[in-house]
This record gives sequence, C-alpha cells and structure tokens, in this order.
Amino acid sequence: MSVNFAGVVPDLAIEVDRSSGEPLGHQVQEGLRTAIRSGRLRAGERLPSSRQLADALGVSRGLAVSAYEQLYAEGYVVTAVGSGTRVADGVAADAGSVQELSSGVAGLSSEAAIPAPDVDFTYGVPDLRSFPTRDWMWALGDAMRTMPTADFGDDHPQGDRHLREVLTSYHRRVRAGCADPHDAIVVAGFRQGLAFVLAALARTSIARIALEDPGPREHDLIARRAGLRVSAVPVDEEGVSVESLRASDARAVLLTPAHQCPTGAVLSPTRRRQLVEWAHDVDGVIIEDDYDAEFRYDRQPVGSLQGLAPERVVALGSVSKTLAPALRIGWVLTPQQFRTEITAEKLLTCRGVPQLDQAALARLIESGRFDRHLRKVRDVYRKRRDVLVDAVATELAGTSIVGLEAGHHVLLRLPGGADERRIVTQAAEHSIFVRGVNDYRVQPDDERPGEAWPPALVLGFGNVTPARIRHGIRILGSLVAS
Amino acid sequence: MSVNFAGVVPDLAIEVDRSSGEPLGHQVQEGLRTAIRSGRLRAGERLPSSRQLADALGVSRGLAVSAYEQLYAEGYVVTAVGSGTRVADGVAADAGSVQELSSGVAGLSSEAAIPAPDVDFTYGVPDLRSFPTRDWMWALGDAMRTMPTADFGDDHPQGDRHLREVLTSYHRRVRAGCADPHDAIVVAGFRQGLAFVLAALARTSIARIALEDPGPREHDLIARRAGLRVSAVPVDEEGVSVESLRASDARAVLLTPAHQCPTGAVLSPTRRRQLVEWAHDVDGVIIEDDYDAEFRYDRQPVGSLQGLAPERVVALGSVSKTLAPALRIGWVLTPQQFRTEITAEKLLTCRGVPQLDQAALARLIESGRFDRHLRKVRDVYRKRRDVLVDAVATELAGTSIVGLEAGHHVLLRLPGGADERRIVTQAAEHSIFVRGVNDYRVQPDDERPGEAWPPALVLGFGNVTPARIRHGIRILGSLVAS
Repeated sequence: MSVNFAGVVPDLAIEVDRSSGEPLGHQVQEGLRTAIRSGRLRAGERLPSSRQLADALGVSRGLAVSAYEQLYAEGYVVTAVGSGTRVADGVAADAGSVQELSSGVAGLSSEAAIPAPDVDFTYGVPDLRSFPTRDWMWALGDAMRTMPTADFGDDHPQGDRHLREVLTSYHRRVRAGCADPHDAIVVAGFRQGLAFVLAALARTSIARIALEDPGPREHDLIARRAGLRVSAVPVDEEGVSVESLRASDARAVLLTPAHQCPTGAVLSPTRRRQLVEWAHDVDGVIIEDDYDAEFRYDRQPVGSLQGLAPERVVALGSVSKTLAPALRIGWVLTPQQFRTEITAEKLLTCRGVPQLDQAALARLIESGRFDRHLRKVRDVYRKRRDVLVDAVATELAGTSIVGLEAGHHVLLRLPGGADERRIVTQAAEHSIFVRGVNDYRVQPDDERPGEAWPPALVLGFGNVTPARIRHGIRILGSLVAS
Repeated sequence: MSVNFAGVVPDLAIEVDRSSGEPLGHQVQEGLRTAIRSGRLRAGERLPSSRQLADALGVSRGLAVSAYEQLYAEGYVVTAVGSGTRVADGVAADAGSVQELSSGVAGLSSEAAIPAPDVDFTYGVPDLRSFPTRDWMWALGDAMRTMPTADFGDDHPQGDRHLREVLTSYHRRVRAGCADPHDAIVVAGFRQGLAFVLAALARTSIARIALEDPGPREHDLIARRAGLRVSAVPVDEEGVSVESLRASDARAVLLTPAHQCPTGAVLSPTRRRQLVEWAHDVDGVIIEDDYDAEFRYDRQPVGSLQGLAPERVVALGSVSKTLAPALRIGWVLTPQQFRTEITAEKLLTCRGVPQLDQAALARLIESGRFDRHLRKVRDVYRKRRDVLVDAVATELAGTSIVGLEAGHHVLLRLPGGADERRIVTQAAEHSIFVRGVNDYRVQPDDERPGEAWPPALVLGFGNVTPARIRHGIRILGSLVAS
C-alpha cells in the first residue's frame, strides 16, 4: 500500500533564498527536481496545487504555474483532470536506493509478511472476530462528546480518575479485590505495567525476583533488563511451590494464580495462605498477573490475591484477553509504598494512555456492554474448549488435558517418552503453530536450570475456529502416534 | 463522579461452598452482606438481577430472590422500579475506611483538584479547543470499518506498517527528511520515544549525553534514569554551542533545532554543519526533538537535521503539539545501527500503541484533514502571537521577545536586574502561571552548573485566548515595573 495524499496535501520543504541572486523561478524548479530525484517525493505522489505551492513559498501564483509547466515538459510530473499534479513514474529514486543512501540496510526482512499458519495455537490470543466494534465506537463517540476540553491535554499521572474508579469498583466486585482509585495506575497493557513495577522495585531494596517455572515467556529477560536478578521456582498442580520460594533469596515473586501460564493450575487455598505468610516474613511483594480470570467454566471464581493481602500484592490486569490486545489498556493496583515510584516511572518514560480510550473503556464497562461482551465470548470459548476436549479424546490417545477450568488455553500432556521438540517442529511443517511446555522454561541468573519438564503442548484456542481446532488436533494426533 | 453500572452489570465474586454443609441460601446472604459491609460494594451501586445472581452462582432463582428479600428486610439494599436493587446508604464501609484497611494512606492529596489559574502560560500546550473532534471521529470510524481482524491482535514491533509509510513520506516531504518505513518506530509520544532511545544508547558504548542548557525540563532526570551521565552545553542565539559540546565527553546530544526550547533560537546553518562534523568525528549521535517545526510564521521552514545526516540522527516527533497530547502518538526515525535495540526496548517494556489510533492517524494525514487542521491552528497561533507582541509593547517597557518565528511559545527577556523568581511567585499569587528561564536549567552530573541566565520568562500562548493573554501581560507588566 503506498501513500496517497488527498485534499489539502502536505507542503513541500523547498528552500528559497531571496538573497542569493538566483532567479526565484529557477530556485523553485530546482527545489522540486531535487525533491523528486532524491526520492523525497515518490512516483505517483500528489504535489500541492500551484496556489498552495505559491502560498507556502511566498511566491506568485504565476511563478508556481511556470515551475510545474517546466517540470511537466521535462517529464518529472504528470497531470490528470481531477487528480492534480503527480510525480511521474521512473524519475524518482526508488525506495531501495534511498534506503541505501540513508542507512545502508541490506534488506527489509523485518517487514516481510510471514504467512499465517493454517492453525495457530498461540497462547493468549482472544477471539479477534468477536471484538465488539460497534460498542467500542459507541463508547468512543460518547466519550468524545462529553470529554472536557482540558482532557485533551496532559493526563493525571496515574490516569483518568473516572476510569480508575470504574476499574477498582469492578475489581472489588468481580475479583473480590480491595483497591481504591488512588491505588490504581492506568498503563498501556500488562507489559508496560510490569516494566514500571519491576523498575520501581529495582529502585527499592529488592534485588531478586522469583518467576514461576514454567511461566510466561520473556519475563526473565524483562526482569533482568529492569535490573533484577532472577530465580526460577517450580510449579505443580497446586500452583507455585512456596517452599522453593522460601529457599530462594527473592523478595518479589511474579504469579499467574487464577490460571497458571502455561500449566493451567489454579493456586490452591493452602498455597495462597502460605504465599501471604511468606510475603510478610520476608517483607516481600507478590506481583499478581490476573490475566484471564474472567473466563471460568466449571468452577467458582477465584478471587484476586490482591483482595487477600492488599498491602503485599501488586495486581496487574488488562483488556488484552477480554477485548483485544490492540487496545493497549491495562492497570496496576499497588500498595501505597510503591505508588509514587511506579507513577514516577510512568510519568518520566511515557506520560500515559490515550485519554479518549480511557474514557471509552469506562463507558463500556459502566454501560454493561463489557459484561454483555464477556458473556458472549465466554460461550464462544466454552464451545471451542468442548470441541478441543472432544477432538483430543478421539485423536490423541495416551494424552491428558490440564487447566480446563478457565481461560482459553490448556496444557496437553503427551505420553511419556514423546519427543516434544520433534512434534512442535513437524507440526510447523504441516502449518500448525504450537509451542511445547519447555519453551516456557525460565532462565535463572545464577542457579542451575531445572530438569526438563515432561513433554506437553500449550494449546491456545481463543482465536481458533472449531474446524481449525479439529484439523490441528488431527494432525497433532498423527504426529504423536508416529 | 461515582460508578454507575447499567445494563448487564458485572457479576459479584461470592464464594459458595457446596461441601461445607451450611445451607446455600445462608452462604449467599452472608456473601452479599460481607461484600457490602467490607466496602467492596458501595452505597448506590447496582446489584445483579436475581436471575443473573442465580446463573453466576449456580443456584436457583428462588434462592437468589429470597437472599435479596432478606437483605432488603435487613436494610442492606433498596429497590426501585426500573433501577433494580442497589446498596443502601450508610451500610457500606465508606471509601475512607477501606482505604485505611487496604493501604494506610493518610490522604488523597494527589487526587485533589488544583484550581486552574486564570492565565496559564505553560510551555508546550496546543490550543485544546481546536482539536478536530469531528475529523478524528471520522478517521477512527473509517479505520474501524477497514481494519483487518488480525490487526486487533499484537502489532508489528515497530508499529503499523501503513502509518510508518505515511509518517516517513510526510517527513520527507514537509521536513526534508530522509527515512523509510523500516527506519520508523511508532511510540506513545515524545517521552516514550526518548526513553526507548536513551535506554538503547545506554546499552551501546555511549555513556554520556549532552543536553541544551537551558533546555526542556526533566530531560536530565530522564537521561540519568536511563543510565546515562549528563553534560550541560550552553545555548546562544545560534542554538547549541558545538564548541562546548566538543569539550565534553558526550557522544550523544539531545537538541531542539527548529525552535530551541525554551529560548526560541533556530539552529544556524553553520552550527548544523558543525554538529554533523562533530557526530562523525566522535562516532556520536544527534537526537533531534522536532517538536514544533510545523508552526512557522515569518520564515522559511528549516528542514529536519535527520535529512542532513540520516546515519547520525535519531529524529523524534509526535502529534502532541499539532493535534493534542491526549492522543499519545509519536515516532522515532532511527539509523539502522540502533533500530533493533530501540525496537527490543519497545517490545519488552510496552508492546505498542493502540492500532485503531495508528490507523486513524494515517487516514487523517492522507486525507488532507491533518493539513487543513494545521492551517487553521497556524492562524490561531499567529493571531495570539500578534496579540502577545502588541500587549508586551504596551505593558512591558524594557523587555524584548525572542523566538517569535515559530512555535507557540516565546522567551520574554526582562530588564537587567529584574528578579525573575519574585515575578514568577507574585504572578502565581495573581493566578498567572508562568515559568522563568532558570526553571529550565540542566543539572549536570559532575560539572559545575553554569552561571544563572539573565532573567527571562517563558510564555506559552498556544492554549491561551487573546483576552487572557492581554490580562496576563498586564499583570506581568505591573509586577516587572514594581
């Protein structure tokens, strides 16, 4: 897709020097030629009208018309009724040569489109087709109509006050939380919240963080970049091992208690109590990644850890799993002791989240449209989960599924002795994207990595249609059997 | 403003334990009472309908109805036709007590509304009333209609490809730049771009950055937090002193060449050449803050430094001055050598900018609406500038104005011997917010701070109406004279 300026097209940066003695007309023509030859203007790009050019450069209309006539005669530009004057094909430096001129880059590999796999079991992607476009546009429009003029300026450092009221009220109500608006900081999604929190912790006396192993990918890298050392603590069917946590030097731990990523374990009541005791004993902090608690199927909701120990828990949430990653809105609920430092980190490295989006999200939630959407997609996920369970039972003998109670991913335990890496690689050859549980291992700083995990696949099904789920599981079944 | 849930209201996190032997009805009632007494539900907040409560907890409708009847009898809830069941006044813990419970915070001082001054000469705020709300909503709607479903997922690490095409095309054309889409990284405004660039530099062999003195506030703090040491280099009427820059150890410099902040100086052609030579000689990098070049009045546009030396310049821009700070969209144009590291910084600490906003900005620019807006506000600023010049001539004898050629702020040099601090303080007492040039001094790391600057005030007039400009200058005139 090329750029197609319409309407009032942007001015051209052409320098005219009235003191040089060179005729103005020549200067304007040469300025246009140079802009085209150097590739600043590309083939097909629209030029300003002669009137606009004359105004911008402070020259007469006639001079601008003559300049365009000359360039037309020389073949630099073409004209067509209704589409103005455009740069002719073949005269502009092409993108390739400008690129070399500007940076010496050999290729555009990072831009090359990677073909989408037939079946993409990527973890953590919600059903993108279900995004409530109409409701979101309604919320944006309503926010725009009612936003005070001052809100187009700089935001409150912690984010829009009313959105913080709505988010904390919602969190108290749905997640059994215990936070007020002044405890909340609006951020651009989970990762930004995590980066702020880790940077803030690194400025306190906390030097080491413990991560669930296996756990969300790249968190070890992110923690190290924030200046923290990293310990890995194992996860079992009750969630993270508090015993191993106690044995580490860490005074911070990052957890996915509602539905462990990637194993799907729910943190048990015993472990929840032990964790809070640990945090009190070591003057520590629990960072709660409350990432897909909204999607539960067969069981009671598990409350947020934040509600259990608000003075020891920093809770992070976002709408990336409930609405869409593209919205880039999340929140941090923090005990008072870290609030100033996290807010300073936000203020000095980013300044905030678009105000219109913040106001729109508050309206979406308050109006009930958010919950209506959750109910709708919960049904979508429940059906996909049932299709997945059914397909696995038919196609994948000797495997078992863990983590079915909530969320939109499960762990598929493979038969003992199965070669996880081979299956993942061969699946990719069949255009099935999937990761093994050993792709989720944490790289600790100065400890030995743990033993390899028993072979298992992480199957995200949020954005995979039932037909593709069946197809993907069928292929996986044949690969596991072979 | 309190939270007012409507429509499908959010579920309540109430735990029901079927194995406990306690009657379910009692458990539901006690769950509701606890949620209200603890302050998780606040006075006036709407509860789910009995049907919704029954569905969520997996109990019968009759049991839910009975529970509400019991709570109504006890005075916990009230009901009204058409507005459902709400928490009664006076029974819920108020925000204050929950707040103490949760965090021990003494006050909400950070939330207290600070009354807006009568006249706010804050630097760098555009006219917020001019924000093109209709055009922006058009662009959002158009983007929403045409956005592929996949774009609701995770973004390209460098940002939306088409927006990068539009931004670099615009920059080549209007700012005489020399960048291609693969050189561009979309960020959430200038500060985020700066934070990414400084963090990336700190990971290379660059240890020290030079900042213009006086220069934009807080940049010394931001650079230090990114892990760089800071030198201050003086600014005169030709812009930054390249001689002083050479005398420092710095291999990076952060500049506002088009309209120096806060002095208003335009970097001279000689200095531009010297700067590029310096960068080549020391294997250094120039960070260009191209922050208000779009607003020029009496002179030719000055091209971006990036076009002059694309292999040595990282250019930062945003729409905060042209549209509104609330949009939080900016860009980094980087030489190839820093691209991977800056992109990694973005990916690991934030992930991106809302996709819908990116697509909307591309459409706003391509459709000509962005340029139409610029023309409109340029007239607004030209008029305000003329009012300011006129008022200063009348009310402020012995002063002079610098930096009139572009942007929406000027430097007002006060008569020798005037007490800048006293005038700023007394102005605040008259509800006039203004800063002195000495508020913009850089704190170097391990050098002596420079001499105090001659007294001057920094007057931002972008968001100040003509009547308020006249009023503000009149007051300042009386304070300078006294």
